[in-house]
Amino acid sequence: MILTVTLNTALDLTHHVPRLVPHASHRVTDVAERPGGKGLNVARVLAALGHETVVTGFAGGPTGEVLRTLLAAESPVDALVPIAGNTRRTLAIVDGSTGDTTQLNEPGPTVTPAEWETFLSSYEELLRSAQAVALCGSLPPGIHVGAYADLIRRARTAGVPVLLDTSGEPLLRGIAARPDLVKPNADELFQLTGSRDPATASPDARRKGAHAVVASLGPDGILATTDVGVWQATPPTLVRGNPTGAGDSAVAGLLAGLVTGLPWPDRLKLAVALSAATVAAPAAGEFDRPTYESLLPQIKVTPHASGITPR
Amino acid sequence: MILTVTLNTALDLTHHVPRLVPHASHRVTDVAERPGGKGLNVARVLAALGHETVVTGFAGGPTGEVLRTLLAAESPVDALVPIAGNTRRTLAIVDGSTGDTTQLNEPGPTVTPAEWETFLSSYEELLRSAQAVALCGSLPPGIHVGAYADLIRRARTAGVPVLLDTSGEPLLRGIAARPDLVKPNADELFQLTGSRDPATASPDARRKGAHAVVASLGPDGILATTDVGVWQATPPTLVRGNPTGAGDSAVAGLLAGLVTGLPWPDRLKLAVALSAATVAAPAAGEFDRPTYESLLPQIKVTPHASGITPR
Repeated sequence: MILTVTLNTALDLTHHVPRLVPHASHRVTDVAERPGGKGLNVARVLAALGHETVVTGFAGGPTGEVLRTLLAAESPVDALVPIAGNTRRTLAIVDGSTGDTTQLNEPGPTVTPAEWETFLSSYEELLRSAQAVALCGSLPPGIHVGAYADLIRRARTAGVPVLLDTSGEPLLRGIAARPDLVKPNADELFQLTGSRDPATASPDARRKGAHAVVASLGPDGILATTDVGVWQATPPTLVRGNPTGAGDSAVAGLLAGLVTGLPWPDRLKLAVALSAATVAAPAAGEFDRPTYESLLPQIKVTPHASGITPR
Repeated sequence: MILTVTLNTALDLTHHVPRLVPHASHRVTDVAERPGGKGLNVARVLAALGHETVVTGFAGGPTGEVLRTLLAAESPVDALVPIAGNTRRTLAIVDGSTGDTTQLNEPGPTVTPAEWETFLSSYEELLRSAQAVALCGSLPPGIHVGAYADLIRRARTAGVPVLLDTSGEPLLRGIAARPDLVKPNADELFQLTGSRDPATASPDARRKGAHAVVASLGPDGILATTDVGVWQATPPTLVRGNPTGAGDSAVAGLLAGLVTGLPWPDRLKLAVALSAATVAAPAAGEFDRPTYESLLPQIKVTPHASGITPR
């Protein structure tokens, strides 16, 4: 199975309003809620592709209960660790006049040292049957900034390939623990390396510890810098829509390709097709399967001029 | 005791953000949640003034459970009727750069005919020990538009004074059932009578059935049109702040004055002082007690030129 870790899970609410006017009062015309947090989104896409997936992390309080009740109706297996704090909510306000989204993210609940220890025991146990693990998203209050580095070391000790998708200091600390793969966007690469050019920043990120770096370039696809080659994968046309969750779908594609044993160029095709099909889907964070299937054979993968980069 | 009815209760969430930028992503710096809906706000103010208060209406689903858990820690007594549907949320987004609030209101859950019947039995039982009842706010889906008229007739049969604070069609239908008091704002009076002048619209609203009409005039205070006189009550100075809940505090003042047996001018002083103290309070919907106590002796009540209006 594939394990995804979401330490800062969220109940994702979506409010549709005819038109968002700051400082006015609005009747919400449509409400949706679903289990969220990057690792849960990754797991949902993996499950849709037929992979057995298990989600772990934390959930607690009344909001955590709602999240788990909704998760029970989905395919990924719930291995979330209960906490005393209340799981956070995120709110996406969709403006019907433009289709644009305004996002509000609550801070997470504080996780106690005892809850973290319980999680570590459960994580080690889950690693025994994991083919790959993805560590996704922000850290809630109470979790030390080196937490991802700790989880990466434990995965490596267990011989489980590990992907890290986070930002800021947790990414900086995590990358030093030598994850198999990181998936930064241009901003995260800049924070990590000080370079705005993914072609130079990616090799630099490899030197900082990541075995492979898959940089997401938004509508230009992704640039993968690995120990066996450098490739850029691009969708055939500009896909318009809501980019929420596109990065999580790319992570799912990379993991699916990894556990299936696909060569790098084919993994990148999965990642880019899923990502574009997520942008194209009417609901945020879902991928549109017909779009995915029609895009997959059209993704162009080109070896990048810079070739294999030294570490 | 004083009974307040909130058929469309809500869990009120408040999100503080440094600055609200449409179509951007925001980290919420502070989250608050509390039981809401106009009748619950009225009850909270009444309880703070030392009145025994009971709240009824509907609550259900995970959001209803959170609402009831929070309500249990407050003074008003919970007599809410359980429903299968999930209680709605409202969200107030407070922009820290301006102090302005953007409001999002979810639609309510659908109430079944069986749940409405259960409510009616409970309401009749509660009326037996009520000194006054306030019917507050919008109707959730499933409740017929003449529901308030029905509740008013039952209160009048039980000999319990009844105040109606709603808008649109439920107000129009309700007023025909001859409530003791309605508390429309200028917009609601216009919807009801077609007149934008409260001095002419209020007598018209009395002719439509209300025994007394207390029109809220925002910063200009209130205009009361009754069978024993017409008065305008005004605060001494313009109070700046957040008007959320000011109308509910005015309703609480009118009810407190009624059950205490105060003459009309003194009831209006309570209503205007509580209303202004709510605008002045830092938290939306709370009233600031020192402001209330200092304003109370300063509220000016003047008999209105139009004198007693015919019905």
